[in-house]
Amino acid sequence: MFESAELGHAVSKRTYEKELPKLRSDLLEVQASVLEKAEFAVVLVLAGVDGAGTGDIANLLLGWIDPRDVHVHAYGKLSDEQSSRPPMWRYWRDLPARGKTGVFFEGWYASPIHDRVRRRIGGAEMTRRLAETTRFERMLVDEGALVVKVWLHLTKKGQRRRFESLAADPATAWRVDKESWKHHAQYDRFRQVSERALRETNTSEAPWTVVEATDARYRNLTVARTLLDATRARLERGRRTAPSRAAPPPAPPIDSRNVLADLDLTKALTAAQYDKQLPRLQGRLNELSRHRHFRDVGLVTVFEGNDAAGKGGTIRRVTAALDARHYDVVPIAAPTDEEKAQPYLWRFWRHVPAKGKVALFDRSWYGRVLVERVEGFAPEPDWMRAYREIVDFEDSLARTGLVIVKFWLAVSAKEQLARFRARQNIPFKRFKITADDWRNRKKWPDYAQAVCDMVDRTSTEVAPWHLVEANDKRWARVKVLETLCRSLERALGAR
Amino acid sequence: MFESAELGHAVSKRTYEKELPKLRSDLLEVQASVLEKAEFAVVLVLAGVDGAGTGDIANLLLGWIDPRDVHVHAYGKLSDEQSSRPPMWRYWRDLPARGKTGVFFEGWYASPIHDRVRRRIGGAEMTRRLAETTRFERMLVDEGALVVKVWLHLTKKGQRRRFESLAADPATAWRVDKESWKHHAQYDRFRQVSERALRETNTSEAPWTVVEATDARYRNLTVARTLLDATRARLERGRRTAPSRAAPPPAPPIDSRNVLADLDLTKALTAAQYDKQLPRLQGRLNELSRHRHFRDVGLVTVFEGNDAAGKGGTIRRVTAALDARHYDVVPIAAPTDEEKAQPYLWRFWRHVPAKGKVALFDRSWYGRVLVERVEGFAPEPDWMRAYREIVDFEDSLARTGLVIVKFWLAVSAKEQLARFRARQNIPFKRFKITADDWRNRKKWPDYAQAVCDMVDRTSTEVAPWHLVEANDKRWARVKVLETLCRSLERALGAR
Repeated sequence: MFESAELGHAVSKRTYEKELPKLRSDLLEVQASVLEKAEFAVVLVLAGVDGAGTGDIANLLLGWIDPRDVHVHAYGKLSDEQSSRPPMWRYWRDLPARGKTGVFFEGWYASPIHDRVRRRIGGAEMTRRLAETTRFERMLVDEGALVVKVWLHLTKKGQRRRFESLAADPATAWRVDKESWKHHAQYDRFRQVSERALRETNTSEAPWTVVEATDARYRNLTVARTLLDATRARLERGRRTAPSRAAPPPAPPIDSRNVLADLDLTKALTAAQYDKQLPRLQGRLNELSRHRHFRDVGLVTVFEGNDAAGKGGTIRRVTAALDARHYDVVPIAAPTDEEKAQPYLWRFWRHVPAKGKVALFDRSWYGRVLVERVEGFAPEPDWMRAYREIVDFEDSLARTGLVIVKFWLAVSAKEQLARFRARQNIPFKRFKITADDWRNRKKWPDYAQAVCDMVDRTSTEVAPWHLVEANDKRWARVKVLETLCRSLERALGAR
Repeated sequence: MFESAELGHAVSKRTYEKELPKLRSDLLEVQASVLEKAEFAVVLVLAGVDGAGTGDIANLLLGWIDPRDVHVHAYGKLSDEQSSRPPMWRYWRDLPARGKTGVFFEGWYASPIHDRVRRRIGGAEMTRRLAETTRFERMLVDEGALVVKVWLHLTKKGQRRRFESLAADPATAWRVDKESWKHHAQYDRFRQVSERALRETNTSEAPWTVVEATDARYRNLTVARTLLDATRARLERGRRTAPSRAAPPPAPPIDSRNVLADLDLTKALTAAQYDKQLPRLQGRLNELSRHRHFRDVGLVTVFEGNDAAGKGGTIRRVTAALDARHYDVVPIAAPTDEEKAQPYLWRFWRHVPAKGKVALFDRSWYGRVLVERVEGFAPEPDWMRAYREIVDFEDSLARTGLVIVKFWLAVSAKEQLARFRARQNIPFKRFKITADDWRNRKKWPDYAQAVCDMVDRTSTEVAPWHLVEANDKRWARVKVLETLCRSLERALGAR
């Protein structure tokens, strides 16, 4: 990947000074269009060989464009808030909103490359982590973002010369330290590892541009032109999105048997059984939440279900077993405007709990493949790719140690109707029944199909779906609590 | 303050079971109204003697009300993101939006009380910190929030008995540890210090309710009733806000001399002077930003000024001297809906830089006493109290070590007109001139008065205003850079 960047590219001072003013005013102009249209975010990854000048480039760019619309992110050691969450959490937190630009030093490549250079991880683990980053970048592009990745390259000799010339000038000597020379000694290994990393992440939607950085003028002009051309091309494409490459969900089975139809909704508990089992299960859950290993784990539970299936009441039976200081109930309502300016999953990432905490989602990221699919709120390509993105998301959570348990609370159409009517008779519950609820009822078969597809496509070993017969509230609550206890026992027992 | 809470209050089991159902359904009902109206946030501070059961109360309350609209916040040791920012930052970050409830364990009282008990701070410092918290609570109330503060009290004997009974039951024994008995040994000192803290923070807008916690049933009912009554009263008051108690700004001086009129807007630099001074000052600023003590400091700069006074261009000349990884330019535009659901200053608190970083605000929290005052976007009581709140805010920043420098860039009405016209001829700058800009121009004298009042009321030793003659852009840029260098030199030299 580095061949074309070892040719000794250079630009004369005269050419530089001739090209620069036009380039700067063009950059300002496209940036103004990006901001004005606010259709997509610009994600610029600046990485490369130590000494090649990623910092210089960032400073120059921010001098040329309007720094008010750009945020620059450099990541050092993980802060304690970061280290108790999945590795990608800090990048999600810093994503630019539509219309804005984010410059990411080393992007999400620092840890896979450096860990591999230092032999902290094997080649297979590096490949796995890189695959995670390419899926992340693909999601960004699918969400409309422009992802530009620039790698600044120096030969070994070029790096030595750069360090020597920086060290010779008193104004820049501070930029060369022991660490720099240590990197220089590891140049060959770094080159080999990063070459592989670039190759594995050189996707069609977010390709790398490798730039020879020996000559600063050539480097500066090339990076600026790369950003300019990519932004222009993206502006021209506009809102048009590519047709989905995702296979459509399979047709419903011919015998109309499915996971929902197979539920026995007559399952029920007597008041006496319930009064005996509920406190016992709550006690068991409470103990599990105080298990000495729980602080290394944490719990994410998702509550989805038919309208009026009793999600709220079930959640309260679960939280009653937990310490208020350790859990958060996250009700998912319409996205705020800050959330709308971000990729779909952003508003869930911001609620990912730290290790040792519990998050209970009342509705969730599955809205995209349920209500948004059925009501046509999300275009087909968007909800079709959501299955894959959701599985990736839950996989990231599980890898940090979070236990993920997902519930679908199912009631029959008849039971739902009875509950709607009952709610309308209680003054302070009346506001809970809206026109939406009546509308959703009319599409019962469509929702059922969406639920079955969702379960088929997103029930994984690390984040399984549990279908709960909820015509009888007692049965549903006890089953949910029991499932939570068993899931936690398995996770804590395995430690 | 504790006399009425040492009378041996108790409630029989029969009364408890009779009162409870009504109380719970009333609580649910008022909570539903709070959420539906979304006019104000509920801030519940739960504090008290160790062993009195703040945790029990929180768990109970969250079992009674709908936990989806409530967030519970317990604060331990400062995380590294928190410790590099002002102490109040973490509370601001967690404030509930309008319609929601936040439960704050120990509120903002843990550090003043515990530091004083352990003699880490003197009485005067405790008083200062408590004064900061009362101003914070007053701001919350002025912003419409309901602040309910509950202190759970136990006598020394009551505390010992509580610990003994918890320790005797295997299910609760884990709640009593060495720390608990250490607290018990310090009971008298803790009582004395907390009595003073409560007295000093027992304001009319956010009074303490001291509840005897010896009898759990009495405690539970009383806390629930306190929250219920306060919420009902607040709901009845509705949107009506009290008339401002702030004195109006003084009348303009009779001789019409003022800080703006006194500026000599003919001040200018030749191109030769500018080309010599600018790089020298940028070099000086760059060195200061790399000073070994800068990481303990940080810099907040505010850029305000007439429309088209050249804020953006000046900011770019400052950032050109800084490393892109260490600064953020924060353009202040219309608030997002998440920001609108919070107190006014919330949207600035979220951009407070960590130590060692630089934040450049392009427009700022002064919008409230400038455009919002002049255009009537903020009611008079709101912008009148803003002066005081802003001074408090900047004081909090300064106490963490942040250097604060504020600039007003002043141009004459004639110069502004010339710049508006010039901008309209540049395609990618045309969008910068809007109908607002022309409207603002018509109110020139009102804005001038607002600027003079702002400078008079908010120029403090820790956060001074610098008025910059900006008819000549070169002069303005050089003056801004020079002021920044001198301010930083003073701050770093003092270390």
